[in-house]
Amino acid sequence: MGKTQRRKPILLIALGGNALIKKGQRGTIEEQFYNLRLPVRQIAALSERYRIIITHGNGPQVGHLLLQQEACPEVPALPLEILVAQTEGQIGYMIESTLDEILMDMGIEFRPLVTLITYVVVDRDDPSFCRPTKPIGPGYTREEAERLPYPTIATSKGYRRVVASPMPITIVEKREIKKLLEMDFLIICCGGGGIPVIREGRAFSGVDAVIDKDLVSALLAEEVGADIFLIATDVSGVMINFGKPDEKALHQLDLEEARQHLQSGQFGIGSMAPKVEAAMRFVENTGKRAVITSIAEIEKSEAGKAGTEFV
Amino acid sequence: MGKTQRRKPILLIALGGNALIKKGQRGTIEEQFYNLRLPVRQIAALSERYRIIITHGNGPQVGHLLLQQEACPEVPALPLEILVAQTEGQIGYMIESTLDEILMDMGIEFRPLVTLITYVVVDRDDPSFCRPTKPIGPGYTREEAERLPYPTIATSKGYRRVVASPMPITIVEKREIKKLLEMDFLIICCGGGGIPVIREGRAFSGVDAVIDKDLVSALLAEEVGADIFLIATDVSGVMINFGKPDEKALHQLDLEEARQHLQSGQFGIGSMAPKVEAAMRFVENTGKRAVITSIAEIEKSEAGKAGTEFV
Repeated sequence: MGKTQRRKPILLIALGGNALIKKGQRGTIEEQFYNLRLPVRQIAALSERYRIIITHGNGPQVGHLLLQQEACPEVPALPLEILVAQTEGQIGYMIESTLDEILMDMGIEFRPLVTLITYVVVDRDDPSFCRPTKPIGPGYTREEAERLPYPTIATSKGYRRVVASPMPITIVEKREIKKLLEMDFLIICCGGGGIPVIREGRAFSGVDAVIDKDLVSALLAEEVGADIFLIATDVSGVMINFGKPDEKALHQLDLEEARQHLQSGQFGIGSMAPKVEAAMRFVENTGKRAVITSIAEIEKSEAGKAGTEFV
Repeated sequence: MGKTQRRKPILLIALGGNALIKKGQRGTIEEQFYNLRLPVRQIAALSERYRIIITHGNGPQVGHLLLQQEACPEVPALPLEILVAQTEGQIGYMIESTLDEILMDMGIEFRPLVTLITYVVVDRDDPSFCRPTKPIGPGYTREEAERLPYPTIATSKGYRRVVASPMPITIVEKREIKKLLEMDFLIICCGGGGIPVIREGRAFSGVDAVIDKDLVSALLAEEVGADIFLIATDVSGVMINFGKPDEKALHQLDLEEARQHLQSGQFGIGSMAPKVEAAMRFVENTGKRAVITSIAEIEKSEAGKAGTEFV
């Protein structure tokens, strides 16, 4: 709890799904551990100058668990929020053990590092319970998707199952996370958007949903007073006319422009749109830096040399 | 970090599988949440006088995940240690949210409470990798067991699958856990015995095993300097001649007697034997209190009015 540590700014990094499973991969355990080294190496280097929180998605992993439990009726099925909790354990362990290893490689004798199970309050009347938007699990062809017993949407990875994705209201463990930041703990939390619960009086009950990890990360960044909010994904930053001949990468984006592009449908629902919304929300509410960048350019983006910066 | 808090003794409570799923239950989510209230209510009351660590088993839950992934070849299979990590997330969330609710009910405004993903180093040459002893998953009849593609053993819950269960050597997050205890955090950790890893130079790699949660709890109790180590299970304490006409409950047990009963095979492998070994190990190495008791009598046992105390 030295005074110099207290002065380090706080950096929150939200890792996209491709930090673990890249497009075209099936998602074996070897692939996932191998892929993690690229972002984690950069995060370890940044941890010398920042107090760091890492959050992460769980779309493919939670979809896998859902498929597995549907294939095995002899085991009682668990609700979706419990599967989110399972992915927090799984992915948290994978990130933590990779980070531990890389910190040791860097000669850092001991840096406190924890993975916290996190749950997040949502509103029982959230409109998303009637209109699911969050893609999870593997991509299917159109023909396969038509035979599935649940709703799907078309995404860049094929047709994917969709589930409700309510807005996060508050992170239950935010006070614990703040205390740990004061002591310069590296913290992995809010995995898979956090476990979604509604609060009724003094009771919490889980709900069948997956919260968007970028929106919960923006909220957490705000709740703990982060100085930089960095979203790491599979493209080098925000683009307009994505995939068209006049595609254009944006190095800076002010809130007004961002709002216009969002309204004109420039960004994919369930992919870039929630990232842009999350970055906007953080900048609007705190006046601090938000950056959207690629997994490969986390360090360069911190230095202002890559990614899209929201101003 | 007030001085009065520092003076509270440390109590480590290891919750047995029946804290979540009772004999004869299938293990629906409603059953698991309902069952948890009995031990958690007592732990919440004790948390006013103790700094508390909760550990827990995962036998049925990790067995369920294994069955589910075997039933679904389209999803890449994950190794056993990743399934342990998943159960740490699942059960940790269930205990934490139940405890949060009960603390609120008791009028406690804020008590820091975290669930930590924990991994535990084991020896790659541990003999248990050749001779599996840890029962997981559901119980089967003898006829069913004979048709299963993996080894089983007879237990009080029927024939169950067995996996390797190496001795825990050290808990990777022990320094973090100590720091959190200093700040009077309630801590849920080492779920399912902890995620088993072997250390090779600076790298950790997971291994296909489930560590006994009582043995890892004894080690953790020792590593963090616990004052009382309490194992809560489905019987009221240690018995000799269990299930026979001359069955006898033991209120106190000294190490020498315990060793004799253990050697003469009085205690079931994979059930009471590792509990007795864990309690003995803690008392032997620290000279402090260890108690084996039932889930229903945690508070009474702390007061010395129930359970078996090791002296």
